[in-house]
Amino acid sequence: MPDQRVCFVLQVRPEAVEEYRARHAAVWSEMRAALARAGWRNYSIFLRDDGMMIGYVETDDFAAAQARMRETEVNARWQAEMAPLFASLGAAQPDQAVTPIPEIFHLD
Amino acid sequence: MPDQRVCFVLQVRPEAVEEYRARHAAVWSEMRAALARAGWRNYSIFLRDDGMMIGYVETDDFAAAQARMRETEVNARWQAEMAPLFASLGAAQPDQAVTPIPEIFHLD
Repeated sequence: MPDQRVCFVLQVRPEAVEEYRARHAAVWSEMRAALARAGWRNYSIFLRDDGMMIGYVETDDFAAAQARMRETEVNARWQAEMAPLFASLGAAQPDQAVTPIPEIFHLD
Repeated sequence: MPDQRVCFVLQVRPEAVEEYRARHAAVWSEMRAALARAGWRNYSIFLRDDGMMIGYVETDDFAAAQARMRETEVNARWQAEMAPLFASLGAAQPDQAVTPIPEIFHLD
């Protein structure tokens, strides 16, 4: 069992929904490998047609898993390419805008 | 591995967020047992302070898992008690308003 189940929401720009979907159907294998090495497990991204994007991931320690990804060169490249597809991140990269939503119920 | 990973979003009325949280910290054991019997696995509910509620569940067949719950008496009682806490469900019970959001990426 993971120590943490993490859920977060971001907003993809409506006009970028198709591109975001296409990019995630072909995530670089080195990005997938980096996530796995950094301890991101059972990671899914769900995307609504209006651009609401929901991430779900299981990990032992989400802050540490995020930090490990930020140490990788491939993550910097990936997030720089994704950033223009998101709405209102300000100056942040997408991975820096992630705020976990509290889990209030769980059934194994 | 589950056949389906399902994510859905509902909106809790902002003034009902505390009650919704409290209710989900004490879900009836018969409701938990009914969900498990109906094939709802690794089911989490996440709740943002503004009332955005996100469900994540793994199951072999979500439509069938929903149908199995609707056959139970405990689900009818539970959903009737939850319905007033949600915004704009119309005449539907919460479990009838659930629309799965497409998964566009997965990493085991």
